[in-house]
Amino acid sequence: MPSFTVFKGSEKGEIVESKTEKPALKADEVLLKVTHSGLCGTDVHYKGVDMALGHEGVGTVEAVGSDVTMFKEGERAGWGYNHDCCGHCPQCLSGNDVYCPERKMYGMADLDQGSMASHAVWKQSFLFKIPDELASEHAAPLQCGGITVYGALQMYPVTAGDRVGIIGVGGLGHLAIQFAAKMGCEVVVFSGSDSKKEEATKLGAKEFYATKGVKELKLKDNRGIDRLLVTASVQVDWSMYQSVMNPRGVIYPLSVSEGDLQMPYMPLVVQGLRVQGSVVGSRNLHRQMLQFSAAHGIKPIIQTFPMSKQGVDEAFETLEGGKMRYRGVLVAR
Amino acid sequence: MPSFTVFKGSEKGEIVESKTEKPALKADEVLLKVTHSGLCGTDVHYKGVDMALGHEGVGTVEAVGSDVTMFKEGERAGWGYNHDCCGHCPQCLSGNDVYCPERKMYGMADLDQGSMASHAVWKQSFLFKIPDELASEHAAPLQCGGITVYGALQMYPVTAGDRVGIIGVGGLGHLAIQFAAKMGCEVVVFSGSDSKKEEATKLGAKEFYATKGVKELKLKDNRGIDRLLVTASVQVDWSMYQSVMNPRGVIYPLSVSEGDLQMPYMPLVVQGLRVQGSVVGSRNLHRQMLQFSAAHGIKPIIQTFPMSKQGVDEAFETLEGGKMRYRGVLVAR
Repeated sequence: MPSFTVFKGSEKGEIVESKTEKPALKADEVLLKVTHSGLCGTDVHYKGVDMALGHEGVGTVEAVGSDVTMFKEGERAGWGYNHDCCGHCPQCLSGNDVYCPERKMYGMADLDQGSMASHAVWKQSFLFKIPDELASEHAAPLQCGGITVYGALQMYPVTAGDRVGIIGVGGLGHLAIQFAAKMGCEVVVFSGSDSKKEEATKLGAKEFYATKGVKELKLKDNRGIDRLLVTASVQVDWSMYQSVMNPRGVIYPLSVSEGDLQMPYMPLVVQGLRVQGSVVGSRNLHRQMLQFSAAHGIKPIIQTFPMSKQGVDEAFETLEGGKMRYRGVLVAR
Repeated sequence: MPSFTVFKGSEKGEIVESKTEKPALKADEVLLKVTHSGLCGTDVHYKGVDMALGHEGVGTVEAVGSDVTMFKEGERAGWGYNHDCCGHCPQCLSGNDVYCPERKMYGMADLDQGSMASHAVWKQSFLFKIPDELASEHAAPLQCGGITVYGALQMYPVTAGDRVGIIGVGGLGHLAIQFAAKMGCEVVVFSGSDSKKEEATKLGAKEFYATKGVKELKLKDNRGIDRLLVTASVQVDWSMYQSVMNPRGVIYPLSVSEGDLQMPYMPLVVQGLRVQGSVVGSRNLHRQMLQFSAAHGIKPIIQTFPMSKQGVDEAFETLEGGKMRYRGVLVAR
């Protein structure tokens, strides 16, 4: 009967340390000691809800159910935004399990446990082996931030040579630059100011444009964008970005946002543009993403905090204050 | 020196009969006697502009330039929305010539001639042979209405078995039903009232939903839509339609509309929906569309009008009054 500590949100928006009790492990379940948890924008979203927080987990296997074959005690495993699916609908059967109508996503199911915790219990088939080349503190932010951008790039795969635009250099954007560059794409970054230019360039950006106060974009040699990943936390000036898209280009809005998508209509039609929704990635892509990261030396730039009430508070403050460079990771003592 | 009659729009929104003079045929040009012209919603759009109207043309070749090899005198040829492209940009070289930045589209170029006319002069490579199986009066509406829906279905090809939703049974919609059905798709039609149900069913629709005043759609057996062609002339209740899309479904807004596309944002992201812009179709698809129509007996349901000032006036009145069943065709005497 596992019993463990979790950090929860609350109606007041304060972090609360709490206890979760789970029944004995089912045959296909794994008990993990959490060692690392990333902190994501959607956690801020759920801080005002009475639920266990965190969905970028990495831990060590402490015990396994009787049918578990994929993991052994002591091995490392990660998990992300989605915890389950039906296994037999068209989405599941076509490898798109993250779009299963019965998926169990963070914020919607399993509210009694998260990655900001001492332990967690998950189904083996929703856990991901961490390649030896990846440090756990780097693997954690890949479980949501990483797969969100990798999933967008690979669900309808980019082609090497594509010009990939990335709006925003933050938790998602700084990973998207690395992935797209290593996929052989030309990476073009749009950021508020020049303050992240040097870092973006080191990560793989070929062009960088500061956009604050800019009403019209002029790209080098007038070469447009084939795919545009929008990682900014607010909706952007779509009209300005539509004007630098190549015909038949694809726009990926990746941030969480209330309300409506609103963008000029006719340019979408006459330029054959596409707006492609996507959310994290299905398990096959998630595994590929970890292997790709290991093979190409992709890792997040992180700030670490202790996995404690104080550490969680501090991490949220840093993120909400716009000061995280670029992803917060809570580390168990 | 061809000199011929054209019907033009005017600032007052009245149809004006006028003369156009062209220089002697260039080497790659073809002079056509216009026999048939479709009437499209975009013509209504340009009726208030001083330009020659019509972009769904079919005619007979009267003369050819010195280098013309594709057509001979007396043969039938059609043309549509786009009249030219550069031939050497990435779009042209990848078979997507209708997205060429130097394309010459109706309303933007060649304002001195259209398909509501006695004659026209076009480059041979932007003319399309009319298969013998197709009557000219049926071939005319395919040159824009037909390729608009065929292009949406085939640019990123539908798969046989896909459930294709079509909003609106009009000039575009009644052709989309036929194309999608003959492509092996299950066609689901959404129309204001039941008045077109019988006809839609005859054309190939498997399901039909009357939507006027409806706030929530319940589809038979809860089976969703994979591709949704929006041919309605006004923007629709996107929220209602998002709710019946299958995950990863594609929405094609095909109508011409001012202002912004505005639809709920989060369903797009979490359901992995796509909004795919598209405009008519490139030449390769246009040719395929005519062959496909001939092979599968696809033809528009038309109302004919004489190609005269009076006939053009009457056709516009019928269309603007919402009474066209389903496409107007002007026929030369």
